Amino acid sequence: MPMRKRYLLTPGPTQVPSEVLLRMAQPLIHHRTPEFSQLFAEVQRGLQWLFQTTQDVLILAASGSGAMEAAITNTCSPGDRVIVVNGGKFGERWLKICAAFGVQTEEITVEWGQAVTVEAIAQALQRQPQAKAILMQASETSTTVLHPVQDIAALTRDSETLLIVDGITAVGATDIPMDRSGIDVLITGSQKALMLPPGLAFITLSPKAWQHTERAQLPRFYFDLQKERTEQAKHTTAYTPAISLISGLHEALQQLQAEGLEQVWARHTLLMTATHAAVRALDLRPLAATHPSPAATGVWLPPTVDGVRLLTYMRDRMGVDIAGGQDHLKGKIIRISHLGYAGPFDIITAISSLEMALSRFGVTLTLGSGVRAAEAVLLPRWPAVE
Amino acid sequence: MPMRKRYLLTPGPTQVPSEVLLRMAQPLIHHRTPEFSQLFAEVQRGLQWLFQTTQDVLILAASGSGAMEAAITNTCSPGDRVIVVNGGKFGERWLKICAAFGVQTEEITVEWGQAVTVEAIAQALQRQPQAKAILMQASETSTTVLHPVQDIAALTRDSETLLIVDGITAVGATDIPMDRSGIDVLITGSQKALMLPPGLAFITLSPKAWQHTERAQLPRFYFDLQKERTEQAKHTTAYTPAISLISGLHEALQQLQAEGLEQVWARHTLLMTATHAAVRALDLRPLAATHPSPAATGVWLPPTVDGVRLLTYMRDRMGVDIAGGQDHLKGKIIRISHLGYAGPFDIITAISSLEMALSRFGVTLTLGSGVRAAEAVLLPRWPAVE
Repeated sequence: MPMRKRYLLTPGPTQVPSEVLLRMAQPLIHHRTPEFSQLFAEVQRGLQWLFQTTQDVLILAASGSGAMEAAITNTCSPGDRVIVVNGGKFGERWLKICAAFGVQTEEITVEWGQAVTVEAIAQALQRQPQAKAILMQASETSTTVLHPVQDIAALTRDSETLLIVDGITAVGATDIPMDRSGIDVLITGSQKALMLPPGLAFITLSPKAWQHTERAQLPRFYFDLQKERTEQAKHTTAYTPAISLISGLHEALQQLQAEGLEQVWARHTLLMTATHAAVRALDLRPLAATHPSPAATGVWLPPTVDGVRLLTYMRDRMGVDIAGGQDHLKGKIIRISHLGYAGPFDIITAISSLEMALSRFGVTLTLGSGVRAAEAVLLPRWPAVE
Repeated sequence: MPMRKRYLLTPGPTQVPSEVLLRMAQPLIHHRTPEFSQLFAEVQRGLQWLFQTTQDVLILAASGSGAMEAAITNTCSPGDRVIVVNGGKFGERWLKICAAFGVQTEEITVEWGQAVTVEAIAQALQRQPQAKAILMQASETSTTVLHPVQDIAALTRDSETLLIVDGITAVGATDIPMDRSGIDVLITGSQKALMLPPGLAFITLSPKAWQHTERAQLPRFYFDLQKERTEQAKHTTAYTPAISLISGLHEALQQLQAEGLEQVWARHTLLMTATHAAVRALDLRPLAATHPSPAATGVWLPPTVDGVRLLTYMRDRMGVDIAGGQDHLKGKIIRISHLGYAGPFDIITAISSLEMALSRFGVTLTLGSGVRAAEAVLLPRWPAVE
């Protein structure tokens, strides 16, 4: 059995720093103790820093989809109508949650790989002036597109319509200023920019959104955010928290704070830019050419290459895990992550393995040309030689 | 503080697989128990497999230098004369140990970067036919040279002279067939091909070497190998063993056995070949051009580059730890490891970081050209596409 070192380069789960893993491996403490409450209070402050908000950021033992459900069930009532931006797998998820809870939807369909336009949102708001909310992704992970959330927030911030944003692969990867933009609900998950394993979701609501929760009639129990807000104001949770993940979160937030928020965003942007340069140097096309997400880069494969087989080969033979396409893009694209605990040599590894794998799959390319282009982007960004 | 992922690419300590680290993090067991004896017996069998010997491989709580001392003090007497191959820092160490214990030395000086010739050994043996032993390295880590141990063993195996081999960066990295070659003493350390932290040394003696221990008069206590042999035959040690390292050794040996001994050697050779190709593509010269070690590759730096500053920059700014030169080579060479838990993307990372660092230090080079050459070596060695 050949030695196979593993490289996790997918947009979730992402790599977890060993300091975080070791923190989570420490003996469990009980969650109804002063020690846990102090820990919890510290991560609450860290999350407000990360979300750029003075509002409470609630911590849920759930994956991000749970927080998406909570965003709807805590703000909407049966028969309410919402506008949904559907430009990928996670846009579709909003539609499915609405359908499950009897919320009417006005769908804005966006071609996979494109960003929604502010005009399309404005037109939908004209068609549906009573829309309870706009549901969208900041970063649509399935298409590696970044939607213009801040511009859209300008349309809703002075209206009754809520802007509910899935920032699962955006918060911590790029600037999503909750308070300053006037976003009403913002969500993320632990296994993304926060450099943690999956298992935690985070959600924060604007004062306007909290007002909506007073009137929202959709059924909810586990995801009752008012109840969570009351409990979490006391630095505890309504139901048993995922204790070790919250310990890990404490360590991860400390690492992110030591790096600095702008620096964390800049790192993601740099790695995205290097990845795009490499992809183009390999004569490949990025899926999101005009509005790329700093979380991951989708890449169209040459039509001769079966992406499923390519990824299986890279994973099982090379030890490199990158993501594929979903639904109609399955087998046609790959997605290289630069999200979370990722540095320059993760990109070099991704591109080098991709070059060699494509070559093994019969694609004519110049070995090293992708890496060369990535290095050319990275080179001037290393600190000065002293 | 910028995020800085760490890449340990030095020829000791080498990277340790997380499975091994986690094994060592398990609760300690006591060393005078049946459970420990069983563990010990299993690693003893694994070490015999690794050393290619039917002799006992003794485990010492020491670094490799301790085993070097043990090799001398257990076979030599005051005033004995030995032949020492001095072609680097570790050849010098033999001389220093001999001096400390009053052993006379016939030194064969070899230019750093060159291998000793069999003829030079034969001539030394003619000058000193009563030589008690030849002391040499298999892989001289300081110069990244591989000496022709097997050919030299052919000179000593039918004589009274012992061949004592420091295999610290050779055992597990290349074929050093103890029994088949007729090597008399063979040594390694834990933090090399064995993929462990430092702290253990291993030594095995031929029947001829054991006979010499009967007559050896040099003072010894902690490194009394006869005493260790007696105890270790009972699956325990004379003094307190480094328990957690031995647990880790159990896991590491299982991983190496799953990979297969020939495959482990082939991996080291492949990574060495890729590294040399990259170095030459960057218009640099390997230090050991004719007899390169599969443990590490020494590289002459351009005279304009201060190697100490370069390595500091790579370590502190890029997070990449490669080794420098020692003594008169300090600042003039670097050494890239491919030893132990190393795979293709460790080499890619080493070469990519070196390309960018050299460029930042003003060296004119084509970015990506080293990586390209490494990829060209690696490419045909990936498994077939099914």
